[in-house]
Amino acid sequence: MTGLVARKSFGSDNHAGAHPDVMRAIVEANTGDVVAYGADPWTERATGELKRLTGAEGEVYLVLNGSGANVLGLGLLLGRHEAVICAETAHINTDECGSAERILGTKLLTVPSAGGKITPDLIAGRLSGRGDEHFAQPGVVAVTQSTEFGTCYSLAELRAIKEFCTANQLRVYLDGARIANAAAHLGCPVAEIAACADVLSFGGTKNGAMGVEAVVVMHPEDGINAPYLRKQHMQLSSKMRFLGAQFNALLTDGLWLRNAARANAMATRLAAGLAGMPGVEVEYPVEADAVFARLDPHHVAQLQRDWTFHVWDETTSTVRWMTAFDTEETDVDAFLADIAAATGAVSV
Amino acid sequence: MTGLVARKSFGSDNHAGAHPDVMRAIVEANTGDVVAYGADPWTERATGELKRLTGAEGEVYLVLNGSGANVLGLGLLLGRHEAVICAETAHINTDECGSAERILGTKLLTVPSAGGKITPDLIAGRLSGRGDEHFAQPGVVAVTQSTEFGTCYSLAELRAIKEFCTANQLRVYLDGARIANAAAHLGCPVAEIAACADVLSFGGTKNGAMGVEAVVVMHPEDGINAPYLRKQHMQLSSKMRFLGAQFNALLTDGLWLRNAARANAMATRLAAGLAGMPGVEVEYPVEADAVFARLDPHHVAQLQRDWTFHVWDETTSTVRWMTAFDTEETDVDAFLADIAAATGAVSV
Amino acid sequence: MTGLVARKSFGSDNHAGAHPDVMRAIVEANTGDVVAYGADPWTERATGELKRLTGAEGEVYLVLNGSGANVLGLGLLLGRHEAVICAETAHINTDECGSAERILGTKLLTVPSAGGKITPDLIAGRLSGRGDEHFAQPGVVAVTQSTEFGTCYSLAELRAIKEFCTANQLRVYLDGARIANAAAHLGCPVAEIAACADVLSFGGTKNGAMGVEAVVVMHPEDGINAPYLRKQHMQLSSKMRFLGAQFNALLTDGLWLRNAARANAMATRLAAGLAGMPGVEVEYPVEADAVFARLDPHHVAQLQRDWTFHVWDETTSTVRWMTAFDTEETDVDAFLADIAAATGAVSV
Amino acid sequence: MTGLVARKSFGSDNHAGAHPDVMRAIVEANTGDVVAYGADPWTERATGELKRLTGAEGEVYLVLNGSGANVLGLGLLLGRHEAVICAETAHINTDECGSAERILGTKLLTVPSAGGKITPDLIAGRLSGRGDEHFAQPGVVAVTQSTEFGTCYSLAELRAIKEFCTANQLRVYLDGARIANAAAHLGCPVAEIAACADVLSFGGTKNGAMGVEAVVVMHPEDGINAPYLRKQHMQLSSKMRFLGAQFNALLTDGLWLRNAARANAMATRLAAGLAGMPGVEVEYPVEADAVFARLDPHHVAQLQRDWTFHVWDETTSTVRWMTAFDTEETDVDAFLADIAAATGAVSV
Repeated sequence: MTGLVARKSFGSDNHAGAHPDVMRAIVEANTGDVVAYGADPWTERATGELKRLTGAEGEVYLVLNGSGANVLGLGLLLGRHEAVICAETAHINTDECGSAERILGTKLLTVPSAGGKITPDLIAGRLSGRGDEHFAQPGVVAVTQSTEFGTCYSLAELRAIKEFCTANQLRVYLDGARIANAAAHLGCPVAEIAACADVLSFGGTKNGAMGVEAVVVMHPEDGINAPYLRKQHMQLSSKMRFLGAQFNALLTDGLWLRNAARANAMATRLAAGLAGMPGVEVEYPVEADAVFARLDPHHVAQLQRDWTFHVWDETTSTVRWMTAFDTEETDVDAFLADIAAATGAVSV
Repeated sequence: MTGLVARKSFGSDNHAGAHPDVMRAIVEANTGDVVAYGADPWTERATGELKRLTGAEGEVYLVLNGSGANVLGLGLLLGRHEAVICAETAHINTDECGSAERILGTKLLTVPSAGGKITPDLIAGRLSGRGDEHFAQPGVVAVTQSTEFGTCYSLAELRAIKEFCTANQLRVYLDGARIANAAAHLGCPVAEIAACADVLSFGGTKNGAMGVEAVVVMHPEDGINAPYLRKQHMQLSSKMRFLGAQFNALLTDGLWLRNAARANAMATRLAAGLAGMPGVEVEYPVEADAVFARLDPHHVAQLQRDWTFHVWDETTSTVRWMTAFDTEETDVDAFLADIAAATGAVSV
Repeated sequence: MTGLVARKSFGSDNHAGAHPDVMRAIVEANTGDVVAYGADPWTERATGELKRLTGAEGEVYLVLNGSGANVLGLGLLLGRHEAVICAETAHINTDECGSAERILGTKLLTVPSAGGKITPDLIAGRLSGRGDEHFAQPGVVAVTQSTEFGTCYSLAELRAIKEFCTANQLRVYLDGARIANAAAHLGCPVAEIAACADVLSFGGTKNGAMGVEAVVVMHPEDGINAPYLRKQHMQLSSKMRFLGAQFNALLTDGLWLRNAARANAMATRLAAGLAGMPGVEVEYPVEADAVFARLDPHHVAQLQRDWTFHVWDETTSTVRWMTAFDTEETDVDAFLADIAAATGAVSV
Repeated sequence: MTGLVARKSFGSDNHAGAHPDVMRAIVEANTGDVVAYGADPWTERATGELKRLTGAEGEVYLVLNGSGANVLGLGLLLGRHEAVICAETAHINTDECGSAERILGTKLLTVPSAGGKITPDLIAGRLSGRGDEHFAQPGVVAVTQSTEFGTCYSLAELRAIKEFCTANQLRVYLDGARIANAAAHLGCPVAEIAACADVLSFGGTKNGAMGVEAVVVMHPEDGINAPYLRKQHMQLSSKMRFLGAQFNALLTDGLWLRNAARANAMATRLAAGLAGMPGVEVEYPVEADAVFARLDPHHVAQLQRDWTFHVWDETTSTVRWMTAFDTEETDVDAFLADIAAATGAVSV
């Protein structure tokens, strides 16, 4: 049947369903009538907890998906005429169909990145036209943590970006669709990551939720128009309690962190299994829930008969293997066995 | 506790939760991995069934909420420079924070409406500047069925609008956030309503879903850029199966129609109980799930101590009382008793 | 030949050409090379003089036409999510093809107006939804001085609006396409009008220029992104000296005020001649360069054989007669004679 | 005095004023009243002549500047959701402050270019995500002729691009701000260049006009919304006759081509003089009115004391020297002498 995945998918962390605790919370929230659009106890609890967790002094706004979070978050920080500096490989640049340009009318000033990460030097290279009315004027720097390539900025790296931006009148937006994986990898309070941003998204969907993200405003003055922009951007949910309930489950007893740690561990296990396997070259440090690898196109094709995953770059025969909150060790081991077989590392 | 509603709310059809069958379908869809973004069996079944139900020859696109549906639907029909003719009281004009203007850059050319309904004559009055580059050029007429005032266009009224529009090179968008209530009231196949539009939304959320709407494209050529605009408008859900599952439940054994019929019947019961009650004047024909009434501001204030509902217009002391798919006869009767008491229709 | 007007046009103040002094200034500016985009002595002199004249503490930006001035001016004051309150009859609402919505993504919240003028009460009526995320949030009030109907706000009226706006966190944009006519009528320094706005346009084109308007920023902090928005809005002229030269001519020896006074006087003369003429009813106080009148449609048709003017409203048979900086008394008298003849006020 | 350039500027072709014939035409057009917004004989003659010259079957629209022409031209061809493929170095990408993104909401998908020119292969490299809703969908390819680097596409190169685009459902926009220079270089009818585009701009300002550009629509069906978009984009001039008059002068007796040929010849003379000059490296073929050269930063600084020109790239010490319609041989020779002196090619 179309779209059903027989074996555990390594295609995306959103091929998984919702964590049972999340589903249970949704079911339990389905009781009686409550006021719509967020003035309900589930939403209040979720946003309150997210404020505490991130150390935000501004408010937290639940939204419907990752693009919605990114566009709202950028919109809060951008002056009407300003542009965004981001990695060429940033999700907002490559995977959102030009949503930032369409909705915000902003230009993305891209910089090349190594493993999805940008640096103060790369940002500095985009500032030469400042003050000249002919050139797009950068106002926001967007970083992704963890990155689209399964790498993580260290706190030192993030702080260096934040300091540079503060010194150069640039605001920082952090795409945290997978911020949980970064927190798990760094072993630090998520507030230390959040402190390096002015506005960030905090992802739920890729971490076991059914479908919810949060936009976190660190400084109150940046959130003044957030409720209105969320509505204009079509990101205001009427039966919001079901968004709040999802985050409540994730935020109970650190489920969010355990889910991320599990996904990370499974990616690490996969990478460890690949180490030394002839014909497979892992491309980036494996610091979150993704493994990028190069292998022979024929081996890719053979693996795709039984397993679900994306070819990231056909020209280099690079594949992306993603784990999820519910990936099992046996899934990884079975996949490894087939990779070994396909690449001839073992006889079959 | 904030937002919790002790008694059945008459505030909005989205104060209710999800219908148990919808919740069950969501839970059941949470099984194993599936491809994201809609290539899953739940979504395929839902969109296929919605095509059949509406008679659409184009495709159906699931989206995340009503504003998302309206803006996408309008965007599919509008030329880049075109404006929309709609009722002054249309949801897109009054309740979406200017989303159509913000996202589509379009102008809304409003006409006064009686009970939320517009007519060919009213539309004609907005066509005088056609062909003059100084004037906004109408390209789409937007109607709401059932309307924001709980009234329904008859099929004859809708057909007259469609014919007028066809004859005048105007496209028709139908905001069907409550199309089920209209189908229940008119007792006609929903396809007969849909045939009067070029693109319509088909509401789930107000009819017992947790949160899902569909954009239905009647003619294939109008849907060419729909997938891309849905993504740009941040309305593409990754774990789409959970949207599909909701519609599957609603579309099984006509649950969508039964839910709407129940809500309509409860509004009718409420109106019947108000009839002849001194001090309460019902404003519009009650043809869907809403009753608009005028009563003394002091009586309103007294009722709001125990019951949840909106004052629609303070200047006229008009209130809106909404029913929902799960309103019980006993809810209506208890509310009626309190209204009677408050307005002095009975001694307390 | 198409478009040529045999007799003096009463159709629009932009049917006239450029004042000879303006043309002379343009020709004289055509000497040698100068830096482009405004860093030239003509532009510097013009903007400096306009600052002095209006009392602006911010900068002055020359732009290419009236719509360009209005959209830029509004854009400087609007928050990203905000809407504009204006008269239903405002040029930005009725005559710019929806430019403000298209370019700024803003909604225009219109109020009915008497003779083009709005009041604090009318503005107040649009503030009820403030703070509710479902409603468009007004951020700017736009007034036109002199209005589209040839009337002028008194300074007291303008000050009342400004005070109301200040007290209600609203900014004021003043469309001054015909601000010169208002200054001439009121007999006050233009700075007193400008002081009632946060940003205004100062029109050149309708007052004898070939084609130039200025956007005047009263407070420096509102102009921070003005150079960039002007460029993005395609209003930055490369050979800017020719824009500057036009204003220099108008600002020399008060030509701008003399031009406006002449146009006003001719409208007043026309209105005086109409007074008591049977079959002609003047609609608004004649305080600038326009006369609106109602007369029999057959008389309108007869007059249009020889004279150029617009029928403003066919349903009421209202016409608009505009004068210009170069309208002569003999033009007015000849026109009056024909009006009298057409309406039967005199035998022919 | 600020901005005045003592010697002939090599800074830009818009540092020059207007050609005397253009100025004369403007003065002569200042006669009597004419209907505004383009229904005048000057505009009709200009647009008619431009249609004839380019072979356009659609209409020609006069606009106010180059950015205005580019944004309008792109807007006519782009579907609401579509993106633009262009050279990284294209004027629309680097010099218009993000106007295309701001006004059209479109994304620019850039390709590296050699000397400003792109190729079918480079375009093809941007088509891999077609049909995937996550990726921006290219709908238009934008080329510049002559390019921002003073090079020209050959007709064969342009035709190859057009053929590739036609075969791949892509439309072609040609930025012809300096199309006259290309026509002069190629020695071909401008219609042969225009035939390679669906919509193009035809530049006046850089070729001796005071300030006017034309948007030329090759196929009538692409121009349906052009009048409205021009107005919405604030590019509709009220006293349009003065735009028409400028083009009339340029189009009389081939002045446009003579102006361009003169500018080209002066650039060629400059390049010839530089040939073999030690310490000066000309970067691109000199095929229009620009010479890009690298020389020692100290020599650049010395030359800038007396001469006006731009440093294009400080990191490589590349300068841009532009000629204009009124550059004299003596200007070039004096400049060459100073370059030689500065670079030590001759003793001073």
